[in-house]
Amino acid sequence: MPQTMVEKLISKKVGRNVKSGELVVASVDLLVSHDGNRPQAPDIFKELGGERVFDHKKVKLVIDHAPNVPNQAAASIHQLMRQFANEQEVELIGPGEGICHQIIPERGYVKPGDLVLGTDSHTCTYGAYNVFGTGVGSSDLAAAMLTGKLWLKVPKSIKIELKGLLNRGVSPKDIVLYIVKLLRADGATYKALEFSGEGLASISVDGRMTMSNMAIEMGAKTAIFPCDEKLEKWLQERNIEKDFVGITADENAVYEREILIELGMIEPQISLPSTVDNVKDLREAEGITINQAVIGTCTNGRLEDLREAAIILDGKKINPNVRLFVTPASREVYVKALEEGIITTLIKAGAIIGVPGCSGCSGGAHFAIPSDGEVVITSANRNFTGRLGNPKANIYLASPATVAMSALQGKITNTKKVVY
Amino acid sequence: MPQTMVEKLISKKVGRNVKSGELVVASVDLLVSHDGNRPQAPDIFKELGGERVFDHKKVKLVIDHAPNVPNQAAASIHQLMRQFANEQEVELIGPGEGICHQIIPERGYVKPGDLVLGTDSHTCTYGAYNVFGTGVGSSDLAAAMLTGKLWLKVPKSIKIELKGLLNRGVSPKDIVLYIVKLLRADGATYKALEFSGEGLASISVDGRMTMSNMAIEMGAKTAIFPCDEKLEKWLQERNIEKDFVGITADENAVYEREILIELGMIEPQISLPSTVDNVKDLREAEGITINQAVIGTCTNGRLEDLREAAIILDGKKINPNVRLFVTPASREVYVKALEEGIITTLIKAGAIIGVPGCSGCSGGAHFAIPSDGEVVITSANRNFTGRLGNPKANIYLASPATVAMSALQGKITNTKKVVY
Repeated sequence: MPQTMVEKLISKKVGRNVKSGELVVASVDLLVSHDGNRPQAPDIFKELGGERVFDHKKVKLVIDHAPNVPNQAAASIHQLMRQFANEQEVELIGPGEGICHQIIPERGYVKPGDLVLGTDSHTCTYGAYNVFGTGVGSSDLAAAMLTGKLWLKVPKSIKIELKGLLNRGVSPKDIVLYIVKLLRADGATYKALEFSGEGLASISVDGRMTMSNMAIEMGAKTAIFPCDEKLEKWLQERNIEKDFVGITADENAVYEREILIELGMIEPQISLPSTVDNVKDLREAEGITINQAVIGTCTNGRLEDLREAAIILDGKKINPNVRLFVTPASREVYVKALEEGIITTLIKAGAIIGVPGCSGCSGGAHFAIPSDGEVVITSANRNFTGRLGNPKANIYLASPATVAMSALQGKITNTKKVVY
Repeated sequence: MPQTMVEKLISKKVGRNVKSGELVVASVDLLVSHDGNRPQAPDIFKELGGERVFDHKKVKLVIDHAPNVPNQAAASIHQLMRQFANEQEVELIGPGEGICHQIIPERGYVKPGDLVLGTDSHTCTYGAYNVFGTGVGSSDLAAAMLTGKLWLKVPKSIKIELKGLLNRGVSPKDIVLYIVKLLRADGATYKALEFSGEGLASISVDGRMTMSNMAIEMGAKTAIFPCDEKLEKWLQERNIEKDFVGITADENAVYEREILIELGMIEPQISLPSTVDNVKDLREAEGITINQAVIGTCTNGRLEDLREAAIILDGKKINPNVRLFVTPASREVYVKALEEGIITTLIKAGAIIGVPGCSGCSGGAHFAIPSDGEVVITSANRNFTGRLGNPKANIYLASPATVAMSALQGKITNTKKVVY
């Protein structure tokens, strides 16, 4: 029986061939818990009577949601995490090291074929690495900390085949916003998105992370990219041992739905307030005055995102009526951006640089909160009412290039139209 | 009748010769209001029936206390400030531009002989520029916005004469902590500190700012340095027009008290929890385990402070049990530190870089809040219980070099003993 990528990956974790719809108990390769949850997985682990985690090398705690340590409540959660990490000989990362989804691959903690659970809904981001990553609650994570297993239903897959090449000024963020427009917020509920096609060859691993990241915005259980030359090169450059077998879908695998996307047909996209799937072609929103612009988050805070913004802002000053917040996704991204001169360019253009982490995404990070009635354009993944800590603000989602260009002009601006 | 610097400066602002103890009404040269006050001076200005500020070029609004814009309340204050600035054609600076006391001199908004009021208690910092700077409440500032005048009692002066040279590893912060030890928290209440002596020649304008900054910690109304070659060179480098006359004390001026300090006798100092004047020689506190270190604030967030930390941390990693937060005092400091490679060095050493402003000083900035029971060493000016947003933390005050060295060692460390 031919299998999808997801069926094949989970089969390996169960120890027998499984198919979509089956309820299975699978072994996990990595568990990631961050500081953004109440209650915390470590607390529940103790409530469950847990003494030792199943494998201390397979559990990582990351302080990323409040990297500024903005108040006593955050400081207490961080202290609890440090204590648990010490007790369990588990690695604690942060604050200031970056967003879990960025750090974990950077440090070589995931490899093709892995099953990863995280207490963050955007754990699907790891799909760029040919990984089955999915978000779970603190209770499920605590149980997996004890047992090393996850009980789940094997999801059906939606195949998304990419063909051709993106036009200049169009980026992976535009592709995924375009897919959100197509599938809507509930269009992939408990499904897996499986990306394929020759169009992938031109999309970097960074860009794939942007795309898998937003799978949850369509309700997907996960999203996964194949293990191709581009990914293997990425892993090689990081000296990640080649003790894995990349997962590929069988030729005649059965999909819930198959979608073919011609990349050259995609224009810059924008998600309007206040649902992620309120996506339009960017030109329909052009000219709207903005007050704040944000570049960063687990969706678009990587080196190529910051580099794109720096190219646009080089030698220029942002509009005086705009505040531009930029947050590198990790310390590694920050260092590379420093060494390339990107940070200097951004600072000189008037940007405010945040601490690597989730700052500028959810209001809980206590950073870049807009004022009442303000318009914010951001490279993040969510624009729900109140997402940025003020329910009276209006949030638009777009690519880093669109955000940078709009910060420069003081209004939503189509990158395709402007020569830079 | 011979006059002190302060008597002479205020005489110019009153239009006749005045002496200490007199109640006078003086003209002001600059008014600075920041986002840290409730109620805001602009609100009171309107309550007073104010329509136009007395001189829109002499009023500056600075967003520095919450440069991260951590919540809706801060965002609202910032919005109110932007509206007032627009209405009154007053310059609004920030967020992300830096701390008012740093930006105002950098931009050439103060010059020798000026009388400056600010809604921040550390407005005495401008004393490094041969300025009478003093902190007032929002109501007094609002009244001065209307009238351009301040009603005040001319303070008596304490003369502090500096002789000799500092030893290696000892900095202006150590001098001022030493003076705090000498005078105590109430030793200069409503007095002016007047610095003088040949020892000044070796103290940079940055270092003088650190010293005048902490005058308020002894209750002083202000602190003032003479206008010497070093200051004139500083002003020249910034192209600040020489349309001023530096204020010098008369030879036989009458002081409340005269203190002679031999710089070579000062060892590194430290202020222990939880009053600023609980100052000891650093060696008495050596070896205390720390959890957090902070470099920045209006006391010690300038280029030479960051440079000193970078020299100590170059090529090294801070202790894994320490979080090091560094906040440049202004965007200009940040840019220079970027260009010198200081930021890269600090980031590589493990530091978390904050947004230029008051972050990491008062808890209200929602940045770098310690956990319960933790020990913090900081280059700031206050260590009162709860100052950093957690009343269960213990705060030590020291020089940037001591803070950096302690972050490296994980414990309070005497810079004099370590070769770097």
